[in-house]
Amino acid sequence: MTLPASLQNQDCFSIEDDKLHEECGVVGVWTTQDAASLTALGLHALQHRGQEASGIVTFDGHQFCTHRGLGLVGEVFADPQIIAKLPGGSAIGHNRYATTGETQIRNVQPLYGDFEFGGFAVAHNGNLTNAQLLKQSLVRRGCLFQSSTDSEVFIHLIAISLYTNVIDRFIDALKQVQGAYSLVALSKDMLIAARDPLGVRPLILGKLPQGKEKKSWVVASETCALSSMGAEFVRDIEPGEVIIINDDGIQSIKPFSNVANRFCIFEYVYFARPDSVIENKSVYMARKKIGAELAKECNVDADVVVPVPDSGVPAAIGYAAASKIPFELGIIRSHYIGRTFIEPTDQIRHLGVKLKHSTNRSVLEGKRVILIDDSIVRGTTSKKIVEMVRAAGATEVHLRIASPPTQYSCFYGIDTPAQEKLLAHTHNIDEMCKLIGTDSLGFISCDGLYRALGEEKRNNFDPQYCDACFTGDYPIPLTDHDKQLIKTK
Amino acid sequence: MTLPASLQNQDCFSIEDDKLHEECGVVGVWTTQDAASLTALGLHALQHRGQEASGIVTFDGHQFCTHRGLGLVGEVFADPQIIAKLPGGSAIGHNRYATTGETQIRNVQPLYGDFEFGGFAVAHNGNLTNAQLLKQSLVRRGCLFQSSTDSEVFIHLIAISLYTNVIDRFIDALKQVQGAYSLVALSKDMLIAARDPLGVRPLILGKLPQGKEKKSWVVASETCALSSMGAEFVRDIEPGEVIIINDDGIQSIKPFSNVANRFCIFEYVYFARPDSVIENKSVYMARKKIGAELAKECNVDADVVVPVPDSGVPAAIGYAAASKIPFELGIIRSHYIGRTFIEPTDQIRHLGVKLKHSTNRSVLEGKRVILIDDSIVRGTTSKKIVEMVRAAGATEVHLRIASPPTQYSCFYGIDTPAQEKLLAHTHNIDEMCKLIGTDSLGFISCDGLYRALGEEKRNNFDPQYCDACFTGDYPIPLTDHDKQLIKTK
Amino acid sequence: MTLPASLQNQDCFSIEDDKLHEECGVVGVWTTQDAASLTALGLHALQHRGQEASGIVTFDGHQFCTHRGLGLVGEVFADPQIIAKLPGGSAIGHNRYATTGETQIRNVQPLYGDFEFGGFAVAHNGNLTNAQLLKQSLVRRGCLFQSSTDSEVFIHLIAISLYTNVIDRFIDALKQVQGAYSLVALSKDMLIAARDPLGVRPLILGKLPQGKEKKSWVVASETCALSSMGAEFVRDIEPGEVIIINDDGIQSIKPFSNVANRFCIFEYVYFARPDSVIENKSVYMARKKIGAELAKECNVDADVVVPVPDSGVPAAIGYAAASKIPFELGIIRSHYIGRTFIEPTDQIRHLGVKLKHSTNRSVLEGKRVILIDDSIVRGTTSKKIVEMVRAAGATEVHLRIASPPTQYSCFYGIDTPAQEKLLAHTHNIDEMCKLIGTDSLGFISCDGLYRALGEEKRNNFDPQYCDACFTGDYPIPLTDHDKQLIKTK
Amino acid sequence: MTLPASLQNQDCFSIEDDKLHEECGVVGVWTTQDAASLTALGLHALQHRGQEASGIVTFDGHQFCTHRGLGLVGEVFADPQIIAKLPGGSAIGHNRYATTGETQIRNVQPLYGDFEFGGFAVAHNGNLTNAQLLKQSLVRRGCLFQSSTDSEVFIHLIAISLYTNVIDRFIDALKQVQGAYSLVALSKDMLIAARDPLGVRPLILGKLPQGKEKKSWVVASETCALSSMGAEFVRDIEPGEVIIINDDGIQSIKPFSNVANRFCIFEYVYFARPDSVIENKSVYMARKKIGAELAKECNVDADVVVPVPDSGVPAAIGYAAASKIPFELGIIRSHYIGRTFIEPTDQIRHLGVKLKHSTNRSVLEGKRVILIDDSIVRGTTSKKIVEMVRAAGATEVHLRIASPPTQYSCFYGIDTPAQEKLLAHTHNIDEMCKLIGTDSLGFISCDGLYRALGEEKRNNFDPQYCDACFTGDYPIPLTDHDKQLIKTK
Repeated sequence: MTLPASLQNQDCFSIEDDKLHEECGVVGVWTTQDAASLTALGLHALQHRGQEASGIVTFDGHQFCTHRGLGLVGEVFADPQIIAKLPGGSAIGHNRYATTGETQIRNVQPLYGDFEFGGFAVAHNGNLTNAQLLKQSLVRRGCLFQSSTDSEVFIHLIAISLYTNVIDRFIDALKQVQGAYSLVALSKDMLIAARDPLGVRPLILGKLPQGKEKKSWVVASETCALSSMGAEFVRDIEPGEVIIINDDGIQSIKPFSNVANRFCIFEYVYFARPDSVIENKSVYMARKKIGAELAKECNVDADVVVPVPDSGVPAAIGYAAASKIPFELGIIRSHYIGRTFIEPTDQIRHLGVKLKHSTNRSVLEGKRVILIDDSIVRGTTSKKIVEMVRAAGATEVHLRIASPPTQYSCFYGIDTPAQEKLLAHTHNIDEMCKLIGTDSLGFISCDGLYRALGEEKRNNFDPQYCDACFTGDYPIPLTDHDKQLIKTK
Repeated sequence: MTLPASLQNQDCFSIEDDKLHEECGVVGVWTTQDAASLTALGLHALQHRGQEASGIVTFDGHQFCTHRGLGLVGEVFADPQIIAKLPGGSAIGHNRYATTGETQIRNVQPLYGDFEFGGFAVAHNGNLTNAQLLKQSLVRRGCLFQSSTDSEVFIHLIAISLYTNVIDRFIDALKQVQGAYSLVALSKDMLIAARDPLGVRPLILGKLPQGKEKKSWVVASETCALSSMGAEFVRDIEPGEVIIINDDGIQSIKPFSNVANRFCIFEYVYFARPDSVIENKSVYMARKKIGAELAKECNVDADVVVPVPDSGVPAAIGYAAASKIPFELGIIRSHYIGRTFIEPTDQIRHLGVKLKHSTNRSVLEGKRVILIDDSIVRGTTSKKIVEMVRAAGATEVHLRIASPPTQYSCFYGIDTPAQEKLLAHTHNIDEMCKLIGTDSLGFISCDGLYRALGEEKRNNFDPQYCDACFTGDYPIPLTDHDKQLIKTK
Repeated sequence: MTLPASLQNQDCFSIEDDKLHEECGVVGVWTTQDAASLTALGLHALQHRGQEASGIVTFDGHQFCTHRGLGLVGEVFADPQIIAKLPGGSAIGHNRYATTGETQIRNVQPLYGDFEFGGFAVAHNGNLTNAQLLKQSLVRRGCLFQSSTDSEVFIHLIAISLYTNVIDRFIDALKQVQGAYSLVALSKDMLIAARDPLGVRPLILGKLPQGKEKKSWVVASETCALSSMGAEFVRDIEPGEVIIINDDGIQSIKPFSNVANRFCIFEYVYFARPDSVIENKSVYMARKKIGAELAKECNVDADVVVPVPDSGVPAAIGYAAASKIPFELGIIRSHYIGRTFIEPTDQIRHLGVKLKHSTNRSVLEGKRVILIDDSIVRGTTSKKIVEMVRAAGATEVHLRIASPPTQYSCFYGIDTPAQEKLLAHTHNIDEMCKLIGTDSLGFISCDGLYRALGEEKRNNFDPQYCDACFTGDYPIPLTDHDKQLIKTK
Repeated sequence: MTLPASLQNQDCFSIEDDKLHEECGVVGVWTTQDAASLTALGLHALQHRGQEASGIVTFDGHQFCTHRGLGLVGEVFADPQIIAKLPGGSAIGHNRYATTGETQIRNVQPLYGDFEFGGFAVAHNGNLTNAQLLKQSLVRRGCLFQSSTDSEVFIHLIAISLYTNVIDRFIDALKQVQGAYSLVALSKDMLIAARDPLGVRPLILGKLPQGKEKKSWVVASETCALSSMGAEFVRDIEPGEVIIINDDGIQSIKPFSNVANRFCIFEYVYFARPDSVIENKSVYMARKKIGAELAKECNVDADVVVPVPDSGVPAAIGYAAASKIPFELGIIRSHYIGRTFIEPTDQIRHLGVKLKHSTNRSVLEGKRVILIDDSIVRGTTSKKIVEMVRAAGATEVHLRIASPPTQYSCFYGIDTPAQEKLLAHTHNIDEMCKLIGTDSLGFISCDGLYRALGEEKRNNFDPQYCDACFTGDYPIPLTDHDKQLIKTK
C-alpha cells in the first residue's frame, strides 16, 4: 500500500487546507438607514461561510450603489468612506468562497443588472446543478455572461422571463433551476429571500427592534448574524418558501408543489457557527451530542480528550463529558493573520516550523490521547496533527471523527475535492488508520449522527437530511455532472 | 454610589480593550542562514506579547539590514521581498505594544546605532524605571534621542561607555539602568541575551537541530516560539545572567552581585501563551490549577462554568474539573480581523451590535452561570460580558476571577492604566459586584495564587514572585515615578 | 452684465479643468508574444486621450486574460506581475476618460463577453448617438447591461445577431449603431479594427518589424503610439473600413454604402498629440499653420508671444514666426503629480497658491503680451491665466485663440459641458473679452482654420471635417438627444 | 578608439538618467497656521531639486510633528489626513535626491532630535566636505548616528556644543563644518535659515501677505516656490548669513569673517527652475543669453534649432533668436508617470520602444538640425537623442551644449558620477563628437558662460562663481576626499 499523493508533499505551515469549505453567506436588510453598515456587520458574523471576497449592494431610494472586493469583510469594508458611499435603507450582501480557484473581482457577488423594471441585485448561497445546461441555452439566445459563476443564470433567467412583474419573473427563474440555493435579492421596491424546495442551505428571518415608521427586517444565512446586527430571531425561512419584504410587511409565497426538508447535515457537523440555531436546534448542542454519541459508539481507554481546534471543540466537550475522560486543550491555534508569509526554504522545511498550530506538551506528554476532529477529507491534516501530538510525547493517539467517512463530493454549495481525492473514498478505515498513523481510528455511524440530531435513525427511504457526502444519496439531480463519475465504493 | 466614568460611555463594539497588555516580545537567532525567516516565525509565535509593530535586524557578515513596520508580524513581513532583503545568519527581532499611544515608526525596535566598534542592535522587553533620569543626563551630555522609548538609553549608555570591548560596554550599561528587562542584542561578532537581576520578564534559550559547521542557537521571550522555529528548549536564561553567543559557543556571565527571582506572576495569569513553559512550569497547567484553587476558595452552586474567551479557558477547565460543574463554551469569539471597521452611528449604537463576541444562548438560557475571567482592570469588559450573558437568558451570573484584585499599576513592562482607573483600587469587592452587575463576585486570594504555582503560600518577607499589581510591593525602585502617587487603599 | 457662474467660485489650484477631454484611446496588437507589454506601451503614448482608467485583454491561444484599473497606464500596469498575468501574442487595450463622473471599474474597457463562438473583447473610442434607444430595446429583450457605457450595446448586438460568423455578427452590429467610433476587437482567431462611415475619430495601422514566422501588426488611435511600440506606420484605416487581421494577413471590408470623410477638426486643434500624423498631415505643422493664420487674421502690436502651455505652444511658435514677435515661455507648467493634494483652507485660498502653473516674470514684466491658447470652453481658465499674467507685470494682455468660438456640445466622443456652460454660446466676443479681462480677444475664423489645414475654405455644402462644436452642423443624427436642446445663437 | 562602457548597454527606455541631479530643496514657514500645507506647496514647486523623498516637521506651540516618506511631494503628502496630523504655524520641509542609492526612510530629512533645550529640526541642501572626519570624532565621543547622511553631523555638533543658547550652538556647529549648505532649522521659538560663507547653494527670503497679528515669513531654495505659496519675494539670503525669524521679526547675523560669493554657476545652466530669479538674475533670461552666446561662439548653417526638452528649451529659444534659425519642437516628451513600468524582454529591447521621448518627424525629416542641450555628463543621453533624430530623417545633426565640458565631479551638493565616468574627462571634443555620432559638437566657452551671466569674463584670480565641475577649481577644501583622485586632464 503506497502513500497516496495527498499525504506526500505536505506544506509545512498550515494544517487548515484540508477542510471542506462552505461556499457562501448571504445577508439582506430592509430598514430606514445604515443598511450597508448592518449588512457588513452581518457578513462579518458569517465570515466563516466565505473568506475570499465580499460585496454589498444598497438602494437609497434613487439609485443602487455597490462595492465588492477580494478579502475578508473587515478588509473589503475597512475604509469608512466605502460604507459612506453605500447609502440607503435596504441592502443585500454576500461572502464568497471560490470553488474554482479563480477568485476574480467579476465573480464577486451580489450580482447586479439593469432590467427593464429597474435595477436588481441577487446574492446566492448554494450551487445549481443545471447551470451549465442553462448557460449554454442562454448564450445561444444572445445572453452575455460576465462572470463564471453558476449564480449568474438567475439574473439572465429573470431578464428574459416573459412575465412583467418582478416577483413573477423571479419565481419563473426559480422554477427553471435545479440545485441548492438560499437567495437574497433586492429591487427598488422590495427585498426577496428564497430557499430551494429541499431547503439544503440555511436561511433565517430576523427583526430589528427599531422602526416606528416602518418595520425593519433582516435575512441571513445563520442566526449568529442576528446579534451582530442587533436583530432578533423570527423564524427559519422554509424549504421552497419565497419571502417578499417591503414597507407593507412580509408576504410569503410557496411556489413549489414538491417540497421536502433535506437540510445539509454537514452544516451541523462543521459549517455553521456553533452559536447558531438552525431549525430549532443549537449547533453547539448538536455537536456536543455528536461527541457524546461518538463516545458511546467507539470509545477507547485514554487519559485525555483533545480537540483539533477550533471546530472539534464542542464535540470534544461532549465526548469528554460522556466518557468521563478529562477535556484538555492539547493543541493551541494562533489566531493572528492566517496566510503564510514566509517562503519555505529547504532549511525551514527541514526544521518543520509551524505557523498556525502548536502542541501543549504539558497536556500530551506521557498521555494516551483521544483526538476529536469533525471530519477527514484528504487526510493530510490528520496526519500532521497526529505527528505533532506524538512529537509532544503522547504515548497513544486515538482519532475519533464527529462525522461518518466523507466518500462523495458535494454539488450543492460546498467545495469538496474531486471524489478520488477523498481519503475515505479510496481507502477503508484500517488503511486510513495506518496512513494517518493513529493507534486507532473511529467515525460516528450515520445512524449515530442522526440520533445526535434527535432522530431515531436515518430513514433510508426518505432521509431527514441531505447526507450525500457520506451516502452518495443525492436528492437533487446532478444534471451538469456525468453521474458515471460518481462512484460507489 | 455613582457609576465610575470607566463604566459609562462604553464603546459598543469591543470588549477587549479592558485588558492589561504585555509590552513586548523578543527573539534572537544565531545560525548560518535564513535568520530573518526564523526570527519572523518566532515573532509570529510571540504575537500576543505585542501587536502594534514589529522589526528585525540581521547581520550578513558584511552589513546590518533592518526592516521595521507598524502592524502584526504577518503584515510587516508579508512581502517575501522584505525577508529577502534581510540576508544573514544572525538576527534579532522585536514585537511592540506601545504604552503611550504614539506608535510611531521611530519607536519601533530593534534600536540600531553605528558605534565606534561597528553596528549594534538592541531589542528590549520590559521597562526601565530610571530611564527619564538617565535620559536627562545623557541629553545634557549631548546625546541625541531619536525615539521616545525608554529602551533608547541602553544604546546611548553603550555608546558613551569608556570601555572598549562590546561586552564590557554592554554590562557597563546594564549596571546603570534600573527596571525590568529581557534583552537581545546583535553585533557583528555575537548575539547577546540578558535578563535583569530579578528576572521579571521571561527569556529562554533554545537550540536549532541543524548546524554541522557551527552550533545554531535561538533566544526568545517564551518557549512557544521554539516550535514555530523548529528549535528545542535548552533552558531559561537566569535572572541577572548575560549570555554571549558566537561561533565558539555560549558563554555565561553573571555581572550582578544581588540577584533574586521575582518573576512576574501575571505572566502565569494572563500574558504568556498557554503552551509556554516558564521555569519548569507549564503555563496551561498553572492556569488550570489557579482555576481549581479558585473553585476551592469561592465556589457557588451553578449549572455551567463558562470562560470569557480566550484567556479564561484554562482556568475554567480547571474550575469545572474541581467543582464538577460542566464546562461549556457560552461565549463565542470571532477570530476574523480585529479592528473596528464600522463607524458607530446612533442607530448602530442603539442596536448594540457586536463584532467580536457573541453568546451561545443554548448553553446560557435558563442556567446559573459561573463566568471565569483572568482579571478585572477597569471593569468595563466584565460589565458588558455580564449584560450579554444575562441577555442570553442566564438566570444567575457569578463572576470568578483567576487573580487577586488588580490595585496597583505596573512599571515593569506591562501597560496598566493609571491607578485611579483600576476598579479594584477605587472600589471594594461588594461595590465592584454591584457595578458589574453580577450576582456574586470572587477573586482568588494571593496565597491561593501562590499555592496554584506550587508554593505553600506567599512569603511576605521575601516574595517568590513580583506581584506588585496586586500587593503594591514593588521590588525595583521607581526612580522616575513620584512614589507619592502610588496609593495604598 | 453679471458674471456667469462659471467664472465665479474658482478653484484656486488648477487651471486645467476647463479643457475639452478626448474620451478614449485604443490599441490592438497581433504578434507572437509580449502583446500586453506592447499594448501598454501604446496606451502610455495615448495617455492624453484618457487618463482615468485603462485596461488590456489578451489571448494566449487558450484563454482570454484581462486586467483593468482606475488611473494612468503606468499606475494600472505598474506591477510587472500584472503584465506577467497577461500572456499571449494578441491583445487590445483602452484608455478611458469618463464623461459622467462615475468612473467605476465596471465601466472600464475593453468590454468582454463569453459568446456562443467563444470569448470576444471590444474597445471603443467615440460615442454612439443611438445607444440609449438600442439599450432600451435590448433590455426589453432580456439583455443584461453590466456597465453604464454606450459601448456595451456593441457586444449585446453581436451576441444576439442571427449570423453565425464572428465578422458577420460584428458588421451586423456596426450597421445598427449610429455615432462616432474607432473600434478594436479581439476574438481567439483575429484582431478587428473598424472606423465609423464618417471617420470621425482617428485609427491607424502599423507594422512591427519582427516576425519571421508571422506578420505582426498593430492598430492605434494615433501614430504617436507607433514609436512607443517600435512599430512603423502603414496607413490610416479609412472611414467605414473594417480590417481583419489574422495569421493569414490583413483583409479589408467596406460594409457601408454611404461613406464620407468628416474627421474631427478639433483633433488637429487640441486632442491629438503634436507628433502624430493624421491623414498625411502633421498635427504639429497643422497647429503652427493655425498660429500663422491667426496672426494673419487678428494680429496686434505687442512685445512677446506667450503660449498657454502645453497645448498652445505649436500655435504660438507659428504665430510668433508669422508676426515676427518673439516667442517666449512666459508661463511655466509643473509636470509633477497632477492631482490636488492640499485641502484648500481659507488662508490657502486667500493666498492664491498655485500648484500647476506659474508665471515667468522676467518675460512678462512691462511687456505687451499676446497669449495663445487653443480654445475657450467655460472661460474660467482663460480668466485665471490673464490675471496671473497681469500680476506678473504685463502692461497689455491680448488673447488669441487657435480655434473658432466653441458654441455647441460634441456628441461624438468628446466630453463637452452642456451647451449653456459654453461661454461662446452665451456671450459674444466683446462680452467674453470683458469677462475674461483681456485687452483684446481674437479667434481664428472657421475658414481660416480650414485654410490652415490645406483647404481653400470650408465647403459649407459638404464640409471637409466635422466641426459641429463650432458650427452646430452635426453630420450624424443625434437620435438619443432632443435636438430642441441644441440651440443656435 | 573603443566605445566607452557608458555608451554601451543602453537602457532602452529612458534618456533622462544621464543628467546631474540637484540633491535637495528646502522650505521654511513662520506664520500662524497651515504651515504644513504651505510647506508642502513650496516643496512641490521645488520638486525638481529632489524627487526621491520628502519630509515636513511642524511645531504647533506644544509639540513637534513630523512626516517623512519616499516619493514625490504629491505622493508623500497625498492623503489630507497626513497634513491634518501636522498642525501648527511653523514648519520646515525638505526634498531629497539621494546620492548614495540607498534611499532609506531613516535618511529622509528634516532631521530631528530632542535636545536639552527642546526639539530641533534641520533640513539641509548642499554637501559637507568634512562630514566623515567630524563623524569619526563624534562617534568616538559616543554620539549615535541614525542616518548615513552627512547632514546628521549638524545636529550632533549642536547637541554637544558647550553653548547654552540655541543660536550660539547653531553657529558653533556651522563654524566646524566645511562645505556647501543652505539650511533651514526649526526650534519651538524660532525659524533659522543659513547659507554657507561662499553661498554655493541658493536660499531666499519671502513674505506672506497676511498676518495682522504677526508677520509671516517663508524661506525657500528658489523664488519659484514663492508663488506656489502665495508669498512675495523679499531678498536673497546672503553668503555666510544666518537669519533668525521669530514673532519679533527678523534678525540677521553674519558669523563668518571670510565671506565671498561663489554661487554655483550650474544652477543657472540646469538646476534652478526657469521661472526662478537668483541674485537678481532671471534663470530663464540667463539661459536665453547662454543660448545666444552659444550661437555667437559656434553657430553652423542649419534649418532648425531643436531643444532637448525640457531643460534645453530656453537656451534653444535664445540660440534661435540670435542665429535667426527657426525654433521647432522636434522632440516631444511625455509628462505622464516617469518610472519604467514594462520589463524589457528581448523582443521589446529589439523593437527599441520608447517611453519618455519621441521625435516629431514633421520637423526633422530632410532637415539640418541644431540640437541644444544643457550639458553632457556620460554622453549616453546625447547618443540616443542623436540616433532618434537621425532616425526621424534629419540629414545633419549638430549638437550645441549650453555649458562648458563637465570634467570634474561636484562635492558641494550635486550628484555627479565619478570623474572617470564623465565623458569630457576621458575624451576630447573630437572624440566625443565621434562617439555621440553628431556631425559637429560645440560647447559654450567658460568666458562665454560668464558673459551670458553679465560678467566681462571669468576672473581667474577670484572667480565670480563656483565652476569647479568645468574648471576643477574647488573653492572649499575637500577634506574627506583624497584630492589625488581628482585629476586634471
